[in-house]
Amino acid sequence: MATLVLLRHGESVWNAEGLFTGWVDVDLSGKGESEAAKGGELLLDADITPDVVHTSLLKRAIRTANIALEEADLLWLPVRRSWRLNERHYGALQGKNKAQTREKFGEEQFKVWRRSYDIPPPPIADDDSLSQVNELRYAGLPSELIPRTECLADVVDRMLPYWYDSIVPDLAADRTVLIVAHGNSLRALVKHLDDISDEAIAELNIPTGIPLVYELDDDFAPLKRGGEYLDPKAAKAAIEAVKNQGAAKNQGAGKKRK
Amino acid sequence: MATLVLLRHGESVWNAEGLFTGWVDVDLSGKGESEAAKGGELLLDADITPDVVHTSLLKRAIRTANIALEEADLLWLPVRRSWRLNERHYGALQGKNKAQTREKFGEEQFKVWRRSYDIPPPPIADDDSLSQVNELRYAGLPSELIPRTECLADVVDRMLPYWYDSIVPDLAADRTVLIVAHGNSLRALVKHLDDISDEAIAELNIPTGIPLVYELDDDFAPLKRGGEYLDPKAAKAAIEAVKNQGAAKNQGAGKKRK
Repeated sequence: MATLVLLRHGESVWNAEGLFTGWVDVDLSGKGESEAAKGGELLLDADITPDVVHTSLLKRAIRTANIALEEADLLWLPVRRSWRLNERHYGALQGKNKAQTREKFGEEQFKVWRRSYDIPPPPIADDDSLSQVNELRYAGLPSELIPRTECLADVVDRMLPYWYDSIVPDLAADRTVLIVAHGNSLRALVKHLDDISDEAIAELNIPTGIPLVYELDDDFAPLKRGGEYLDPKAAKAAIEAVKNQGAAKNQGAGKKRK
Repeated sequence: MATLVLLRHGESVWNAEGLFTGWVDVDLSGKGESEAAKGGELLLDADITPDVVHTSLLKRAIRTANIALEEADLLWLPVRRSWRLNERHYGALQGKNKAQTREKFGEEQFKVWRRSYDIPPPPIADDDSLSQVNELRYAGLPSELIPRTECLADVVDRMLPYWYDSIVPDLAADRTVLIVAHGNSLRALVKHLDDISDEAIAELNIPTGIPLVYELDDDFAPLKRGGEYLDPKAAKAAIEAVKNQGAAKNQGAGKKRK
């Protein structure tokens, strides 16, 4: 039986400032660093020792992994990285303020871009300073592989080859695998693992910094649907907070429920 | 033509306290963290972008790599780790105070243990709390492979297979390779690269935190013997300081030249 642990990176500087981030390589905020350390502490307390770690190519995930592993005294673990674990590319919205985008395009369009399964935001231009087509870290990828925008369905499509080719072989060798990645690349994986419908996935949120543990059967399907958070109470509170935030926003742009 | 960059980790807490460290997993001191950041800055200033990074399994090397790569905005680089890049195992001397050891065993014996090519210190007992035989990170190694003590010749023997099997193939693909490791595992590699005699290697010191760059020919031999430090002035000063320290110590235990 194999164990899979998912860890979403802590808050980034742009999360804190309310900007769409996507593939822009924004660093963790101070709060994000604390969340990462807490994630490592939870692994240590639960006595879970991964055999291998996979991260995206973005520093907010890599630093979350480094901080969590340092906390758990596991810096020596083998680590592998892939662009296929990157956050969803947010297209032309990258770097834009979320509240202003909602105001400009309206609540409905805003929700479609954020949560529809198969409608991506407008693509970013290759000469935009926030495009990734010329970044050194993607120099090994043919240009057509570098996203200009993505919906969640696109993320599922480009993430799954890494799951099948690089992560499943580790699990097949009965290794405990830790993946440190992003809200949407992890939602894409959870959609696959828990066989969540294209509609239902819109409602799924994964909290930052709280390891989510799946025990998997011989077909790499979860023994328990949804897995288990190492701090279920904190995970529930974080998920509720996101829901309430959404509800408040639906009641009127800019208003916040106290 | 391939480029090889060697980086010795910054000062560790036990370096600062004058204790033999070896395979004990001691963290960087604050000064060591600054040295690591400086190493990253030097890479950035020299416009050297490694394609792949190799580290030992010890956190002072891993954190030096992480800090330097963060400074150079290269955290996304692929990284590989091996026990074969670890520091020399210091046997029963691990955890012992250097000055007290010199006093107890005399200058000559002390120098033999520190600098002779083929005489190791006494072995550490497997039930010693500073032995590594039961450490989780070496669980994949047969017990006979885990050192109980090592001389520099032993380090050369166990380091070279990693050089030939894991680093040379990267260089053969014209990759720029960064190795972040330890005083003695890097001395072992430099001995091999520069074809230094068993006697002459005793005098070679590699300063901490200053990248040492080798351009290699098609046989993976240096185009320039000794390579080039990215900050030659600082490297020379650091090497001189070590020499003077040795000279001062030879003049009388405990005394320091001002």
